[in-house]
Amino acid sequence: METLGYYNGEIGLLDELRIPMNDRACWFGDGVYEATVSANYRIFALEEHVNRFFNSAALLSMTPAITKPQLAELLYTLVYKVDSPTQFVYWQMTRGTAPRTHAFPEQTSPNLWVMLKPLTLPDIYQKIRLITVEDTRFFHCNIKTLNLLPNVLASEKAKQAGCTEAVFHRGNRVTEGSHSNVHILKDGTLCTAPLDNLILPGISRRHIITQCGKLGIPIDERPFTLEELFGADEVMISSASTFCMSASHIDGYEAGGKAPELLRRLQDALLDEFHQVTGARCA
Amino acid sequence: METLGYYNGEIGLLDELRIPMNDRACWFGDGVYEATVSANYRIFALEEHVNRFFNSAALLSMTPAITKPQLAELLYTLVYKVDSPTQFVYWQMTRGTAPRTHAFPEQTSPNLWVMLKPLTLPDIYQKIRLITVEDTRFFHCNIKTLNLLPNVLASEKAKQAGCTEAVFHRGNRVTEGSHSNVHILKDGTLCTAPLDNLILPGISRRHIITQCGKLGIPIDERPFTLEELFGADEVMISSASTFCMSASHIDGYEAGGKAPELLRRLQDALLDEFHQVTGARCA
Repeated sequence: METLGYYNGEIGLLDELRIPMNDRACWFGDGVYEATVSANYRIFALEEHVNRFFNSAALLSMTPAITKPQLAELLYTLVYKVDSPTQFVYWQMTRGTAPRTHAFPEQTSPNLWVMLKPLTLPDIYQKIRLITVEDTRFFHCNIKTLNLLPNVLASEKAKQAGCTEAVFHRGNRVTEGSHSNVHILKDGTLCTAPLDNLILPGISRRHIITQCGKLGIPIDERPFTLEELFGADEVMISSASTFCMSASHIDGYEAGGKAPELLRRLQDALLDEFHQVTGARCA
Repeated sequence: METLGYYNGEIGLLDELRIPMNDRACWFGDGVYEATVSANYRIFALEEHVNRFFNSAALLSMTPAITKPQLAELLYTLVYKVDSPTQFVYWQMTRGTAPRTHAFPEQTSPNLWVMLKPLTLPDIYQKIRLITVEDTRFFHCNIKTLNLLPNVLASEKAKQAGCTEAVFHRGNRVTEGSHSNVHILKDGTLCTAPLDNLILPGISRRHIITQCGKLGIPIDERPFTLEELFGADEVMISSASTFCMSASHIDGYEAGGKAPELLRRLQDALLDEFHQVTGARCA
């Protein structure tokens, strides 16, 4: 298959599969999701993504009707059905199907969705452009939910400005990107926002921290400001599909580019890890 | 039909109709909605709801593929297909159907959904119980969007506490309910939060203000606090399906009940207006 949609056991091409109108995704965005990459039919960091998925679900009082190993097995079964060995691997769980009422419906079980489509791995050494956008999101950003409208609006704003990503800030504090975490390198140290309800506990973020540990790059997990972003030696975004890419411009101004060797060592280490797990090379 | 679902021209029973998995409601909650009541097959305050719907859409850079009169006509056509003359009348528009990317898809047009189900009009003179919940929502509460997870969580919390509605507050400031506006009566004046990005510009709220004007009840549109809520003469919530109901308890404490005559005059006026438009009587 070229693409694959899965819904509670039904399988079809992504643009053909249909789901019940009364799924609570449709009225409330009442669900959680995960996304990662498969290369050579190997799903990268699957266990970590499955763990975060169950954690997101628990934070919304949702209980999957499937165990973690069963979910991993299902994803592998589906990934093998798609022609392309390199895929965007996405799955979500919604609270159930029931007539619309805000409070949780009784006697319903969660719905499991999977969405697979071919992906081209990024050239992570390419420079990207960023814009900054006031962070108007809710205070549940630690949960990977389907309530993504402010992220959609910020992404569109970035696109209109010819940029790859929008960086959110609450007042002067940089939080994260519209679909990535944000980090800076300054004087040899990696600075990244701490884990709280304002950012997603990114899995690529965690891999960056691990690689920094191995490379002897000190980590400073603390809130940082817009001034620090603009004044950083390097500015990076991370996500499952961008790994770790660095910015050349923010809001049209030149940014980063002052610690290219350190950045390169970190990016190389991340790609090496990806290569070891999947056998695939980016760039 | 007992219930009705409509999606871009397709019609079916609500629990049978299916929609494309790639509708952006499913991945992002990328859409806006409206809800009102029909009684005797008359849709109450339809023009106001249609106007707000178009306004919500414009605030998200969405352009309906239908005019306001066409939408009103469609809703009437559909309402007449449902057996029950008293219905919950709900419609929404999503940005389109496209492979999942955050930024707006190109070459797609919005999808129009309608959902109709039988409704029992409330006895608005009945007292209700409320709880208070910290308002963790985003800063786009003036737009009636499908990003409703914090509202879902607060409603569930209210239900678990044996209450009808949860009242949000940002710190000490009362904003609104999880699916209603909140008002207080104090010393003969109606106090209600001002229109900004923290509350929905409620249509029942506007009808209450209009009726207060007719009854000579002064209006104070300003932020009010939790202390004012607990110390009010009467505490009311308003929405399309509850009109204007008053609380006997908040967080388990007795509340309101100190201006029953004034409250009754206001409620009577609201029901009279509803009766004049629809010919139907509540309670």
